[in-house]
Amino acid sequence: MKIKYTLLHKDRNTKARYGTITTNYGTFETPMFMPVGTQATVKTLDTDELKEIGSAFILSNTYHLWLRPGEDIVNRAGGLHKFMNYYGPILTDSGGFQVFSLANAKDISEEGVLFKSHINGEKLFLTPEKSIEIQNKLDSDIAMSFDECPPASAPYDYLKKSVERTVRWAKRGKSVHKNENQSLFGIVQGGTYCDLRKYSAIETVKLGFDGYSIGGVANDGESKEDMYIAIDYSIPYLPEDKPRYLMGVGEPTDLFEGVERGVDMFDCVLPTRLARHGHAFTKYGKINLKNAKYKEDFTSVDEHCDCKCCKNYTKAYIRHLLIANETLGQRLLSIHNLRFLIKIMEEIRNSIKEDKFVDLKREFYENYKGER
Amino acid sequence: MKIKYTLLHKDRNTKARYGTITTNYGTFETPMFMPVGTQATVKTLDTDELKEIGSAFILSNTYHLWLRPGEDIVNRAGGLHKFMNYYGPILTDSGGFQVFSLANAKDISEEGVLFKSHINGEKLFLTPEKSIEIQNKLDSDIAMSFDECPPASAPYDYLKKSVERTVRWAKRGKSVHKNENQSLFGIVQGGTYCDLRKYSAIETVKLGFDGYSIGGVANDGESKEDMYIAIDYSIPYLPEDKPRYLMGVGEPTDLFEGVERGVDMFDCVLPTRLARHGHAFTKYGKINLKNAKYKEDFTSVDEHCDCKCCKNYTKAYIRHLLIANETLGQRLLSIHNLRFLIKIMEEIRNSIKEDKFVDLKREFYENYKGER
Repeated sequence: MKIKYTLLHKDRNTKARYGTITTNYGTFETPMFMPVGTQATVKTLDTDELKEIGSAFILSNTYHLWLRPGEDIVNRAGGLHKFMNYYGPILTDSGGFQVFSLANAKDISEEGVLFKSHINGEKLFLTPEKSIEIQNKLDSDIAMSFDECPPASAPYDYLKKSVERTVRWAKRGKSVHKNENQSLFGIVQGGTYCDLRKYSAIETVKLGFDGYSIGGVANDGESKEDMYIAIDYSIPYLPEDKPRYLMGVGEPTDLFEGVERGVDMFDCVLPTRLARHGHAFTKYGKINLKNAKYKEDFTSVDEHCDCKCCKNYTKAYIRHLLIANETLGQRLLSIHNLRFLIKIMEEIRNSIKEDKFVDLKREFYENYKGER
Repeated sequence: MKIKYTLLHKDRNTKARYGTITTNYGTFETPMFMPVGTQATVKTLDTDELKEIGSAFILSNTYHLWLRPGEDIVNRAGGLHKFMNYYGPILTDSGGFQVFSLANAKDISEEGVLFKSHINGEKLFLTPEKSIEIQNKLDSDIAMSFDECPPASAPYDYLKKSVERTVRWAKRGKSVHKNENQSLFGIVQGGTYCDLRKYSAIETVKLGFDGYSIGGVANDGESKEDMYIAIDYSIPYLPEDKPRYLMGVGEPTDLFEGVERGVDMFDCVLPTRLARHGHAFTKYGKINLKNAKYKEDFTSVDEHCDCKCCKNYTKAYIRHLLIANETLGQRLLSIHNLRFLIKIMEEIRNSIKEDKFVDLKREFYENYKGER
């Protein structure tokens, strides 16, 4: 089946909204944060741990799975859920972002994008149709349209042409989309230009998708202000009865800013990437567990957290694991950081239902002071 | 409390024996295989997973914990169990083996061993007393006496002097052992010489320990035959009412050979080390999951296994994880390989109780053909 979004409550004071998405694997509440499982695995976690932390949708990357192990192997395994043993909803991206960032594509034509594999340098050609065909085979629950991802710093004239092409690409992708159990999202681009975001949103919505993504906000060098503007210029033109997904965003404060502006779905590699470098989110900001001051700190990473890491292990032990290069340290922090964001979203949903989102946001910002 | 070994049944056809060891953390059956948690973590596993695979004792390394994080930190954390969140019995080795192998000690005197830290080259001096003091602070359930670990290829005259010194070292260590909740084992050395093994066993037993280890069988370059001889020459002189521990041994067939000769406890890094290189034990022998032939093999690693890896994931998926450098692959194989050995021991124990050990061994050897 296609996903179904149900809007259940609009916050009285902001554009924040509470709803549900019904999927092939059950009904889940929004706004939600989606852990990223780039290569058909959320780095260091197994699928039991994903369930334990309360994950609903996870995201996996079409570009990576296309290259390795290949969409045909995943398809013959019975699709991505069965391949990776995750029986919850999965969203796949289009591969566009990786082609433009990792593979550093320069050769962009109307037909598609020629680039080199970041693994072995092989020349590959990705088109809107090919991206959808791969995602159809992966059998994710939500697929993304293939879009160009220019940096926000690109000149207006370039962005205008790019946005127009992305609409044409969305149409081409939609025309070959075949998987009846998979929903398809369109993507709004347009940098920080009001007219381009408006054009992109209106033209994409005209094509009729199952949901809408806001892209071009998580490239290197884009500021928080750029992101807020991009959301504010896009949201007014998106239908109320479809979910809105802000791609690649996941600082704790970004979640509040996005929700406040009407976003329903978020994803980001940040929580797991930070964890692998020894950093943890806490109520009071980010901390670096490798810091010598935690050598004999026998308290949990975050006393307010209910995750396996915080309930069972101390800062001193996790610091030891990190210093000794033991992967359990990275895993425990990955579990914690993901749980931290998923729990924020639970609190945000509860606050919206009671029209208290503004209060929750104020309280969170009073405590959360970035890197400590 | 000190451990208590209870001999419950002797196999009718071999020296294999079934018993229990009562510890501070419950009573566990022998013979048993002990997973190795070198740096206060069994590599890639968390402590819930250790319980799931049926682990009883785990082993941790005094040398590594002395260097990092330091025995005082572990002590102030409340001891090793609390530090690493493992509430099952823990055995620590003496540090001797690592000092002689990793740190390549050359400067051995009657007083102790001068060597360089493998981490930062710092000069350190380990003595029989120091080893016991560190282990007292780590608060493991079983500590090992500090022994010299010469290779079996060492000349007879050297081994003779070494064995005599190891007895003197055992006595010195015992005299400073203070922890009333910790048992202390003596170690039998003597290479493959009948008279040296006999001397070492008799003199060590005279000192009166809570259990006895057979050492010097897992150095580089020692053959399987050397190991069998070393066990056969040691066991007759060890008391029946104390457990016998064959140090550093853990090929599946070695477990059968050791049990047959009267050994109760085994440990080895092999199952987790093999896993990190992509190898798995199966009923029919070891397999290399990186092999291309598993690319589209959607069956489990070992259909006879009840572990999380085998119940939920396929060879094709694990191969993908290994090729893509995702640590979940190493973890799933570590869980499987450890469970494989622990399950063999369960089957061995059942076979001894029914005087069918010989039958089980024959059946296992008929199927298990090494690397495939």
